[in-house]
Amino acid sequence: MTGFMGTGKTAVGKELAARLGFEFEDTDAQIEKEAGCSVSQIFRGKGEPYFRRLERRMVRRLKGRKEMVLATGGGMVLDPGNIRQLRKSGWLIGLTAKPHTVVKRLAEHRDRPILEKPNRLAEVRRLLGRRRSFYERADCLISTDGLSVGEVVDRIQDWLLARLNCTVPVRVAPNPYTIEIGWDILKDLGTRLAGLGMGRKVAVVTNPLIGRLYGGVTLRSLKKAGFQPLYVQIPDGERYKTIRWVNFIYDELLKHRFERSSCLLALGGGVIGDMTGFAAATYLRGIPYVQIPTTLAAQVDSSIGGKTGVNHPRGKNLIGAFHQPRLVYTDIKTLETLDRRNFVSGLAEVIKYGVIADGAFFGYLEAQLPRILERNPHYLLPAVKRSGEIKAEVVWKDEREGGLRRILNYGHTLGHALEAATHYRKYLHGEAISVGMSFAARLSLSLGLCKAESVERQERLLVRSGLPIAFPKIGQRAVLDAMAHDKKVRGGAIYFVLAGPIGRVSVRPVPAGKIQAQLRAFASGRRRRFGRK
Amino acid sequence: MTGFMGTGKTAVGKELAARLGFEFEDTDAQIEKEAGCSVSQIFRGKGEPYFRRLERRMVRRLKGRKEMVLATGGGMVLDPGNIRQLRKSGWLIGLTAKPHTVVKRLAEHRDRPILEKPNRLAEVRRLLGRRRSFYERADCLISTDGLSVGEVVDRIQDWLLARLNCTVPVRVAPNPYTIEIGWDILKDLGTRLAGLGMGRKVAVVTNPLIGRLYGGVTLRSLKKAGFQPLYVQIPDGERYKTIRWVNFIYDELLKHRFERSSCLLALGGGVIGDMTGFAAATYLRGIPYVQIPTTLAAQVDSSIGGKTGVNHPRGKNLIGAFHQPRLVYTDIKTLETLDRRNFVSGLAEVIKYGVIADGAFFGYLEAQLPRILERNPHYLLPAVKRSGEIKAEVVWKDEREGGLRRILNYGHTLGHALEAATHYRKYLHGEAISVGMSFAARLSLSLGLCKAESVERQERLLVRSGLPIAFPKIGQRAVLDAMAHDKKVRGGAIYFVLAGPIGRVSVRPVPAGKIQAQLRAFASGRRRRFGRK
Repeated sequence: MTGFMGTGKTAVGKELAARLGFEFEDTDAQIEKEAGCSVSQIFRGKGEPYFRRLERRMVRRLKGRKEMVLATGGGMVLDPGNIRQLRKSGWLIGLTAKPHTVVKRLAEHRDRPILEKPNRLAEVRRLLGRRRSFYERADCLISTDGLSVGEVVDRIQDWLLARLNCTVPVRVAPNPYTIEIGWDILKDLGTRLAGLGMGRKVAVVTNPLIGRLYGGVTLRSLKKAGFQPLYVQIPDGERYKTIRWVNFIYDELLKHRFERSSCLLALGGGVIGDMTGFAAATYLRGIPYVQIPTTLAAQVDSSIGGKTGVNHPRGKNLIGAFHQPRLVYTDIKTLETLDRRNFVSGLAEVIKYGVIADGAFFGYLEAQLPRILERNPHYLLPAVKRSGEIKAEVVWKDEREGGLRRILNYGHTLGHALEAATHYRKYLHGEAISVGMSFAARLSLSLGLCKAESVERQERLLVRSGLPIAFPKIGQRAVLDAMAHDKKVRGGAIYFVLAGPIGRVSVRPVPAGKIQAQLRAFASGRRRRFGRK
Repeated sequence: MTGFMGTGKTAVGKELAARLGFEFEDTDAQIEKEAGCSVSQIFRGKGEPYFRRLERRMVRRLKGRKEMVLATGGGMVLDPGNIRQLRKSGWLIGLTAKPHTVVKRLAEHRDRPILEKPNRLAEVRRLLGRRRSFYERADCLISTDGLSVGEVVDRIQDWLLARLNCTVPVRVAPNPYTIEIGWDILKDLGTRLAGLGMGRKVAVVTNPLIGRLYGGVTLRSLKKAGFQPLYVQIPDGERYKTIRWVNFIYDELLKHRFERSSCLLALGGGVIGDMTGFAAATYLRGIPYVQIPTTLAAQVDSSIGGKTGVNHPRGKNLIGAFHQPRLVYTDIKTLETLDRRNFVSGLAEVIKYGVIADGAFFGYLEAQLPRILERNPHYLLPAVKRSGEIKAEVVWKDEREGGLRRILNYGHTLGHALEAATHYRKYLHGEAISVGMSFAARLSLSLGLCKAESVERQERLLVRSGLPIAFPKIGQRAVLDAMAHDKKVRGGAIYFVLAGPIGRVSVRPVPAGKIQAQLRAFASGRRRRFGRK
């Protein structure tokens, strides 16, 4: 926080730090504490140059610190070296105010060395005039006149959240696309779509719950950008992910004469995304569609990669097609309204990405889990982004699941079987995958592919997230049989994604006997069910 | 026909010519006619060298002739120049027989110059021994011992038909494939599939009619090659081309645990091909399939290019996907059992290829139409091949119907509308397309894009084929409205494929008013319905 005295650096900084869960520091206060006397006293006793030296030393000392809001003295920015140092450590937020406001706010304060002269207003004007160009070098400059402390912090937070917006490329041929991730970006959807060069007819496919929450802002944004949006509502729930409801979408599109240039928008979670994508893949042999995922699982997994489909009475996702979206538009803010169980279920996939492809990311999740669970966008968004990057890269390298893409199925072989054996009623997908990851890790350990520490770290992070890593007695036959049905089976052999050190996996066929033995060990003994809330 | 005396060249040649509808010529007979005396007399009077000169002159004179079976004298092949010349004009069919057979067959004949010596058998042996290496240079060598004339001709015909076998590449990325066209090749299907490297599970999807005719040979061929074929039967008819029956296919595949490496075989016409292709496109998000088209329309059009789909109550082919087959396996012999109306309907598409892409091919069709209508494989197969080549080239250059592929829709804008307006009950697809081609040609004429002669040639060939080129009073509204529904509409404008000189078309938007005026002229006046039988 930089700015002239009286612009509210300390008050705003403290409030901002509180909201972000950061520490708060004030260079003046720190200097006073260490010197054992006030800034005015230092000015009077040792002169301004001496004080500036103390300031510089303080900046150098604080520059490596993270997760801190630092309020600086009003003259700090006069030294270009200080600005450089501060900018390396984070954002420079500048607060400004008109001279009158400054004088008024300072009326209550005594201990201001520079302003002890008779004509305060003239002196403020003079100093502000001299320093303006320095303050304006801030990354973010906010006029505080007429605003409460809370309002100033709101604006800073908006600015900081907008800095999170980012783009992840998905380099599939022949039509690459991007994942656009941001905070509160749903309102800008129309403008963004207008740049894709499609027809004016778009259909927003969603369910009643998501429609009530985000249908309004979506439709308004589309209309404002000149689109003619059609609203298509599907009942909420996996059991409506059927050919029958895809047929309902067809009917709506045909009724409104949707053409090949028309576009479908999937506003919702995985069910909406898969069905809308499948409708887009098969309507007039393929029309464009955009994914607007509103659940964590959809944002980090199902919306990326072009897998679309519906369920069949004999199993999930048995009917479908590969059809890449034209854009994945991910508004992290929509996760605010996601219930905890679904949010945590989505986290299982995020953790999976760490295990299969990025040990450092796994470490980030271990360190930042509490903030991610609070859905603090500053920690959540980077996790969504990194997950998207990993998925996009794997998909790019292997669009049709020839080989590499199978590593995304870490934890899924047992996970799918568990879901099937419990008739998709007991576990959310991520919960089953969590159990599956624990199983795959233990199977990997038993095959000598990873160390016990790797298994422990995985299980600890899953449990801390609130995910299950064991399942109660289920007929092993049922689970094994369900595994044999899984579409990852080739020529009768059961292929497993197995863990190496965190960040590395491999795909290998595992003999049924080995799996059965591990299942016995896994389901019995002293293992409890962890973490389900 | 070459071969030693007494091997049956004349008798076999006459029978073969009769079966093929060719002329028959005999060099010895021709020389005798022109010389006014017998070969023996020439030998005796002027000596063998003189006779050989006459033979050489005869070969040079006959070499340009087409559609002729030519029986040559037994010594003709001794001159390498003769062999070269004959081979340029066509196939060299050599007949052989054992010395005893020759002597026996010659017992009745008198006038054989070389064999008037006492020990006939020894002389035949001697001559045969000297000439064997010459006779063996024939393209096709048949031992006639113990065979009747008819049996020898059967073998020659089989050999000639096998020479028709050919391959047309379809160069689509990333998985190019081939169309394999031949006569009576269904029995070799299994062997051919074995080279594609797929799993052993294959499903033959067909209807009761085709199943009864060709199901047996198909299944036997598959089993012999080590496949485990599943037989899936769909009721016969366009009205079963629905999501519901695709669902039936899914059920069968799931019941028999079909995996991603399993393959579907579409044995039948367009309905079977489209549905099977769509099932393959959407089962487990896409598995391989092979087209085995048994109707002319399917062989020249629907089996090539990867368009798959089903009908919707609101229109044909509204639901579907692009999914390229792994192979198109076209047995022309299956057309023998196709009813005349369906065969002729398929011809409309063949004629269309001439109009849109190849004036010379159009000329071939004009010249050979009677033989094509007789389904003479020697004329029909080249027509199927050239049609496939044109379609494959267009598809290759524009897999997803971005631009060029639209030229394939010549005649289809009105054709589709006509089918829709008559609820798909009155016209077969090709019949409607035939009317549409006539309409498009006349519209092109009215727009100054082609000459009257071009319209006349198109209409004459269609009518000669037995296709309709006009339709009785149908509400113009209904047809226009149906055109507006057509999926080739973009942003409201009606795009038409319009004819230039035969062999060239262009795609242009045509104002509705212009179309309406042409429709009025087309439907009213002195125009009769031609050619429907």
